[in-house]
Amino acid sequence: MKSGQKRVVIENVSPEINGGQHAAKRVVGQRFEVIADILADGHDVLNAQIKYKAGKSRNWQTAPMHHADNDGWKGEFTVDKQGEYTYSIEAWVDYPLTWQHNIERKIDDGQHVNVELLDGVQYLKALKKKCPTEKEYLDSLIKAFQSEEQYNHAINEARSKKLHDLFHDNPTKEFSTTYEKNLPLYVDRGKALFSSWYEFFPRSTSKEEGKHGTFKDCLDVLPHVSDMGFDVIYFPPIHPIGTAHRKGKNNTTTPEPDDVGVPWAIGNKEGGHKDILPELGSLADFKKVVKEAKGQGIEIALDFALQCSPDHPYVKENPSWFKWRPDGTVQYAENPPKKYQDIYPIYFESKDWEPMWDEFVSIVLHWNKLGIKIFRVDNPHTKPFGFWEYLIAEVKKVDKDVLFLSEAFTRPKVMQRLAKVGFTQGYTYYTWRNTKGELIEYMNELTKGPMKDYFRPNFWPNTPDINPWPLQGGNENLYIIRHMMAATLSSNYGMYGPVYEQIDHSPVVGKEEYLNSEKYEVRHWDWNKTNKLKQLITRVNQIRKEYSAFQFTNNIEFCGVDNDQLISYFKQSEDGSSNVLCIVNLDPYNKQSGWLRVPRYRLGVSADSAIRVSDLVTGNSYIWKDEVNYIELDPYQVPYHIFSVQV
Amino acid sequence: MKSGQKRVVIENVSPEINGGQHAAKRVVGQRFEVIADILADGHDVLNAQIKYKAGKSRNWQTAPMHHADNDGWKGEFTVDKQGEYTYSIEAWVDYPLTWQHNIERKIDDGQHVNVELLDGVQYLKALKKKCPTEKEYLDSLIKAFQSEEQYNHAINEARSKKLHDLFHDNPTKEFSTTYEKNLPLYVDRGKALFSSWYEFFPRSTSKEEGKHGTFKDCLDVLPHVSDMGFDVIYFPPIHPIGTAHRKGKNNTTTPEPDDVGVPWAIGNKEGGHKDILPELGSLADFKKVVKEAKGQGIEIALDFALQCSPDHPYVKENPSWFKWRPDGTVQYAENPPKKYQDIYPIYFESKDWEPMWDEFVSIVLHWNKLGIKIFRVDNPHTKPFGFWEYLIAEVKKVDKDVLFLSEAFTRPKVMQRLAKVGFTQGYTYYTWRNTKGELIEYMNELTKGPMKDYFRPNFWPNTPDINPWPLQGGNENLYIIRHMMAATLSSNYGMYGPVYEQIDHSPVVGKEEYLNSEKYEVRHWDWNKTNKLKQLITRVNQIRKEYSAFQFTNNIEFCGVDNDQLISYFKQSEDGSSNVLCIVNLDPYNKQSGWLRVPRYRLGVSADSAIRVSDLVTGNSYIWKDEVNYIELDPYQVPYHIFSVQV
Repeated sequence: MKSGQKRVVIENVSPEINGGQHAAKRVVGQRFEVIADILADGHDVLNAQIKYKAGKSRNWQTAPMHHADNDGWKGEFTVDKQGEYTYSIEAWVDYPLTWQHNIERKIDDGQHVNVELLDGVQYLKALKKKCPTEKEYLDSLIKAFQSEEQYNHAINEARSKKLHDLFHDNPTKEFSTTYEKNLPLYVDRGKALFSSWYEFFPRSTSKEEGKHGTFKDCLDVLPHVSDMGFDVIYFPPIHPIGTAHRKGKNNTTTPEPDDVGVPWAIGNKEGGHKDILPELGSLADFKKVVKEAKGQGIEIALDFALQCSPDHPYVKENPSWFKWRPDGTVQYAENPPKKYQDIYPIYFESKDWEPMWDEFVSIVLHWNKLGIKIFRVDNPHTKPFGFWEYLIAEVKKVDKDVLFLSEAFTRPKVMQRLAKVGFTQGYTYYTWRNTKGELIEYMNELTKGPMKDYFRPNFWPNTPDINPWPLQGGNENLYIIRHMMAATLSSNYGMYGPVYEQIDHSPVVGKEEYLNSEKYEVRHWDWNKTNKLKQLITRVNQIRKEYSAFQFTNNIEFCGVDNDQLISYFKQSEDGSSNVLCIVNLDPYNKQSGWLRVPRYRLGVSADSAIRVSDLVTGNSYIWKDEVNYIELDPYQVPYHIFSVQV
Repeated sequence: MKSGQKRVVIENVSPEINGGQHAAKRVVGQRFEVIADILADGHDVLNAQIKYKAGKSRNWQTAPMHHADNDGWKGEFTVDKQGEYTYSIEAWVDYPLTWQHNIERKIDDGQHVNVELLDGVQYLKALKKKCPTEKEYLDSLIKAFQSEEQYNHAINEARSKKLHDLFHDNPTKEFSTTYEKNLPLYVDRGKALFSSWYEFFPRSTSKEEGKHGTFKDCLDVLPHVSDMGFDVIYFPPIHPIGTAHRKGKNNTTTPEPDDVGVPWAIGNKEGGHKDILPELGSLADFKKVVKEAKGQGIEIALDFALQCSPDHPYVKENPSWFKWRPDGTVQYAENPPKKYQDIYPIYFESKDWEPMWDEFVSIVLHWNKLGIKIFRVDNPHTKPFGFWEYLIAEVKKVDKDVLFLSEAFTRPKVMQRLAKVGFTQGYTYYTWRNTKGELIEYMNELTKGPMKDYFRPNFWPNTPDINPWPLQGGNENLYIIRHMMAATLSSNYGMYGPVYEQIDHSPVVGKEEYLNSEKYEVRHWDWNKTNKLKQLITRVNQIRKEYSAFQFTNNIEFCGVDNDQLISYFKQSEDGSSNVLCIVNLDPYNKQSGWLRVPRYRLGVSADSAIRVSDLVTGNSYIWKDEVNYIELDPYQVPYHIFSVQV
């Protein structure tokens, strides 16, 4: 039985993910707010603080909490170190402040409080021990509290702010309660929260049409991507591609001899997940791409796809990692109605799961050793959650910088679980959220509910697997809109190009697939080609870098506009210095207008003072004096405003 | 590291109160539903069951769970024993059913599945071990699955419902996951959920005006209470009343010599919490009341008020249980602006808290030994939560029948916490919820949110401490309405009489207090007096006993009525046999009418079939054929319908 003298209860702590099994997530420099219900019997004054520490430190730091509402308390601290943090809460009945609160009420009620003053002496004496610098002041109070002649002086001092602050800042914490759990928090580097991804197929980079691109060709592409303002380039798998059951163009099962196969059909006699497709070049070539990219402010992200071509060395070396059927075959991967005849899934229930897990960890560490710190993980939802939890933890032990993007387009709770077990970022349903209502509902789910603490969304308007229905017939305006929203709703976003910026959107009829998809063939692109879309992509990426309000996702707040084709949202950086307001015309064909409710209360401006909004794309500035302002957007000009807001 | 072959995750289990620290509550015979998110990687077929056991049994029983929606699963079992239960969840990938699901899809797709049939033989063999009675059938299947000639027969059997059911009912549970916690459930006797309380002051029972009533007088009152249909009589404290700082009539501090004092100022030289006020009679008299009441179907509930008159023997015997001030006094109890000069609070931070706690437990056990199994606990929110958790657990160890009603009219989270630490029932805000919007919002908070599993509301239209503003000037109709709603919204309810049924509602002006309150003086009542209100109270209590739908609270569902003065709700018993529909006119002065949306879908009736509703008060019956029905209620007739609904 714990001490019966502990009267304070701490419950409903948040964040607390699955009872503290999983870590909340932040990046270096970010605020971390903790809330809890803190209560005791009776009406005594309570106080509370967050306890926290980084890594394996033995020293707890503290941050004050304050009562917010209805027994709810909150506090916050800023995280400044990468890696694991631990936090908890300590709370106590503050006896000196309770004494002060009660004596104040009695004084106000006109009661004579000499006994209460005598009672207070014990708290003054205790305070003196904690505050030697205040010895003189406190000694004089102790005397006054016990002297009938100094009664008026004593009651003034008894209720003084100075005494209140001394008590508050030097708590005795008698019979304090510490929350029964130490909760985990994981702090990543900044890129976990703010990143701009560009995906392209290295084999589609040759200047010569019909020729297989190489890493050397990629060197020439880097400046184009860098100029557009992206800071992560994600390559589909760069490993040897299987020849068994190789797919032909447009996913046919009857390839031509010169068909190059699907990069996700990993492994052949030339190697597996730790090797490079010879057609792309050498390891040295790859290293040069990584280094050159870094010089241009770009990190290379690799694909981590745990599956094998039937030719993969694993199949012979580790047959127990695959599930063999009675006829001696392995069932190829399926995701009905999709069939992947060129791919064997891993048999994760293998009795040899332990060495297998460690081999998979070693793949990530292999590339990490070569400077790769970002992995886009292919279909993680078809591998056990426990495996990912293990792999990510093992990798982070070696290099805290490593980030994992979960490519799980699946059911919500599965996506959430993957984030809980450690994925840094996750793909989202943004790709299929088009209307104002859908977008607001989805953003609020991501940023206002429990997911906000562990699921970092990464918004993609397209991927090699998804040519969304609206984009299939969309005009350039729609591409401009869908890009801009991905990049301003979410601080992490990406796009698959040059398909996107060149609006190469022919579909496989009746499917959300690209025709002549690069998944099955080498394509040729004119990287110098430019258009309005590309210019606006570039400008939006610049704005994201300049205005830190765009470097957070959870800070979004939607603003009222009386037109369902206009969506508007406000973002503010944590330090309050960067304030941006976006208004988007969702209709790519017609001019739309409406009245916007300006989020003046977020800016702390009074009713009669004006704000200045500056359009960061057109350069136009406006002075807004009113609560509501007229907005008109012609999609054939720029279909959105991105305003910087100045008070 | 747990086995990597376990792929199923169980999370978001509900009920799970404070991470399993506190027990969910049910009564004997009630259903207990458990829900959880259960998921695995990939697309395999999952299955799950609840594991549960009563008391210290080592044998887990099981109840099936089924997939409800979006990875959410649910299952239920019925509790048949009083006391502690434990429950958890086990879930697994069902490999045989996954095999069957996959082969069905391939057969439907026109694929040749001979390898899949061969693959299935292993599951048939495993099944044979579990189902020896099906040996012949399974042997024939094993043969067919391996024989090309019997292919058509084999694929028919492979997808048969018989095989599905055999697999489903005899799971292999390979690599199953058990939820990491064993969660607590506490099962009370039925009265915890269904009780009708009547509070009166035993000292106000004398037939002779001005005379102090006795337990002997109470014997004559019992039939009146029994006739009204109540099954719990709650007595304010029956102990010796202090004389120090005794209060006079109407809470004055200048009592007359013959003033009787406040029953909650417990203890004087004649004894304390284990003793009886001599004016009420002897212990034998008290025992007779308890026995006679029992014979009339009534339990006596005592007040448990942990506080002392300055004359209480505890003050001298255990001075460390009180907080002494520097002048040698104890500060009397206060709840500003209320002052209780005649009461010392207990000092729960006493260093001697352990023997003190045990002494308080012994008070409850003392009365329990005399046959008392229900305690109404006075102001539990001014004593530590941990104390209540200890006391209630200790008492339940001795007698599982004991029920505790928490008299905490305080902040929501404090009331919730008291319920979590073990209080069987709690007073509520019903006393101050008057409008349709308030009532619906509050009922939904109590019965649809997390409180539904641990907080059992007890609705009181009045108490000796609360003469609610609307009742102070209310007409008889309002008293009829407020009583009926307390008794039909909540399965536990009570009222403080005869003040209530005799509409003795004069207030202390400007306060929600009764004038000439029985808290401070002896009152005289004509127990034979009757009126329409009393007749309707009696009828409603009869109906509550006859229609089990009223014996639950969480089963409430509100029905649409297009008039804010009409509120309507439907209730169904767990077994579906009892269906009731209430419609109340909240306006005690005017006839109100409106169109009621009949909850036909809950009754499972088709669009064209009629239902019969029988008014259980007036005896009138109606046939309703339509989705909406006209309702008109004149408060001067009966201001409500209580319909029994027959399909």
